[in-house]
Amino acid sequence: MQRGGFVNQGDVKGPVLIIGTGLIGTSIALGLRALGFSVYLDDPSPTTLALTVDMGAGLAWDSSAPMPELVIVAAPPDVCAQQVTDALQRFPDAIVTDVASVKQAIADDVCQSGSDSKRYVGSHPMAGRARSGAAFADKDLFYGRPWVIVPTEQSTQEAVMIVRNLAIDLGAVPTQMDAHDHDTAVAYVSHVPQLVSSLLAARLLGAPSHALSLAGQGLRDTTRIAQSDPRLWTAIVAGNAGPIAAILHDLEDDLADAVERLEQYSQGSQVGAIGVISDIVAAGNRGVSRIPGKHGQAQRSWAEIEVLVPDRPGELGRLFTELGQAEVNIEDLTLEHAAGKKYGLARVQIDPASILTATEELEKRGWRVISVGESK
Amino acid sequence: MQRGGFVNQGDVKGPVLIIGTGLIGTSIALGLRALGFSVYLDDPSPTTLALTVDMGAGLAWDSSAPMPELVIVAAPPDVCAQQVTDALQRFPDAIVTDVASVKQAIADDVCQSGSDSKRYVGSHPMAGRARSGAAFADKDLFYGRPWVIVPTEQSTQEAVMIVRNLAIDLGAVPTQMDAHDHDTAVAYVSHVPQLVSSLLAARLLGAPSHALSLAGQGLRDTTRIAQSDPRLWTAIVAGNAGPIAAILHDLEDDLADAVERLEQYSQGSQVGAIGVISDIVAAGNRGVSRIPGKHGQAQRSWAEIEVLVPDRPGELGRLFTELGQAEVNIEDLTLEHAAGKKYGLARVQIDPASILTATEELEKRGWRVISVGESK
Repeated sequence: MQRGGFVNQGDVKGPVLIIGTGLIGTSIALGLRALGFSVYLDDPSPTTLALTVDMGAGLAWDSSAPMPELVIVAAPPDVCAQQVTDALQRFPDAIVTDVASVKQAIADDVCQSGSDSKRYVGSHPMAGRARSGAAFADKDLFYGRPWVIVPTEQSTQEAVMIVRNLAIDLGAVPTQMDAHDHDTAVAYVSHVPQLVSSLLAARLLGAPSHALSLAGQGLRDTTRIAQSDPRLWTAIVAGNAGPIAAILHDLEDDLADAVERLEQYSQGSQVGAIGVISDIVAAGNRGVSRIPGKHGQAQRSWAEIEVLVPDRPGELGRLFTELGQAEVNIEDLTLEHAAGKKYGLARVQIDPASILTATEELEKRGWRVISVGESK
Repeated sequence: MQRGGFVNQGDVKGPVLIIGTGLIGTSIALGLRALGFSVYLDDPSPTTLALTVDMGAGLAWDSSAPMPELVIVAAPPDVCAQQVTDALQRFPDAIVTDVASVKQAIADDVCQSGSDSKRYVGSHPMAGRARSGAAFADKDLFYGRPWVIVPTEQSTQEAVMIVRNLAIDLGAVPTQMDAHDHDTAVAYVSHVPQLVSSLLAARLLGAPSHALSLAGQGLRDTTRIAQSDPRLWTAIVAGNAGPIAAILHDLEDDLADAVERLEQYSQGSQVGAIGVISDIVAAGNRGVSRIPGKHGQAQRSWAEIEVLVPDRPGELGRLFTELGQAEVNIEDLTLEHAAGKKYGLARVQIDPASILTATEELEKRGWRVISVGESK
């Protein structure tokens, strides 16, 4: 891939062949075409292939096409290793990668196949849409999304660089890890959530219809991904059964304990059901706070301003109003009021970037700012 | 509540007292104030009470205030029944309702308390925000949301009408059911999803940090409500333990079966793990399709147009383009192509409201429309 006229090791200059023109394969093809690459397409379905050619994603591969420098296997995970092995054999000079959501099973099969596996590096672009299929492909699908690069012990440095540059050229954020770490990671953040969402949604089959009329955003959010394709997910889970089973086993243990205590509690026993539920919800609070926020950081830290609030009608409201006029967003506010004192203390959580503005504007308007610091 | 000058049975003319000025209580107060009602507020925390008075939600209740006609108890579910009973005794002419997420436990306590429970009708306005507390109150919080009305066997018709009119005046959609049906319903659509989301999010505590960097929308959606307040949810779950435990028990059974098969599968056994996973995801598909869509109906039904597509380059792309020009949104498209035939068959799923337009526009442009009907 040429950048600014420099041709480095790790730049692909020749054709790219994409095997499997579903959502991911076609999106990659459209992205590469937009960058000026020569792209060939192959797919077992002639009509899907025809559609993607019509969409401008590339030319249909046939035996008269030039040999590719890079082959991207975008086939379902259960046929992926075979496609990779075939490509390594058919194209002895090409680097080969794949896009499957599981990596260890594929790497094992490829490395044990007797093919020239040093030219293979696994990929997992973590992007997608609710709808699958070529018709929904988008050249910007990968923009800002993680693209995991998974070399095997045999992969050459050149192969790794080529795949890394592919990810970068498509706007993705490359991150490298070995197959075991990858599969564990996706078990936690993707595969277990999928199965749990499906198990939860399945409960609605037993719900009376008047119940569904009360559905709200919480139910919709927790079951949205339960609309996924059973065939695709069966292949994914089969390819990552070990890590998934381990995490689900721990969940099962916590759930079994909660169910037993709740059943006894509902029959009148005092069995610590309250404590167990509190622990589960609190543990969930801590777990969800580990998910990075919008800008890739863990839960933001807030700044806290402490302001004296005179014990007169309207003063609290005035504090809110004047912070709003200063365009300071209030994340949270707590009030302490000691009986008999003439003041209350308001602790206001705000964006750390607003500290100076908030302090100046409040003092300008006569407020007594007691302290400014980091929120707990 | 006066409508167009008519004063009917079921109209409240006098003051409304709201006990508990958190998110829900304060939002109700703001809504009633905007409609011109006389509203009084009470809360165990003087500073929270002061804040809500400052926000314009009403006047602080004291012994010099006029007797209320309607009392709304917006206290946490574990103190709710006591507050309702006290209100029935303190205000012998008032109708009393509450807003707790559980109804049977509260109704039982109120009816067994010896108070004049015929003036009590339970409520559950199903609205909320991620953030709790008076500072985030909104007079339009209930707009378009379900408001469940739960009379007891003793409630008078007048009491039911007053509470129903309260809901309607705040823009909510009233729906009536008995306490048992209510508690079962919210177990399915709210309480079980909450606990499952918390259990899922808690797994992230054991995840390596490189895993969290791969978090995507699926994880965020399934764990969003895991940010809920442990104290509130402990009180809710304790008040609805029976129905919740029953649903969770079924989930536990399905989960245990899946875990066992996945563990055996990962150790090399052929134990039907594939079939079990496929069944779980498919059952989840069916479950989630029972959730009403945006306009209150179950999963929309689509129309399907079958169009002959000549086997020439560019024809599929032309079909897409010309449907777009006719402003017909394509929900899904599948293609069949029989080898050796000169045509393929495109099945295009579209909004049923677009059938006539799509058919006319395609035929105008020379397409052969084979059939039009309801999608499977």
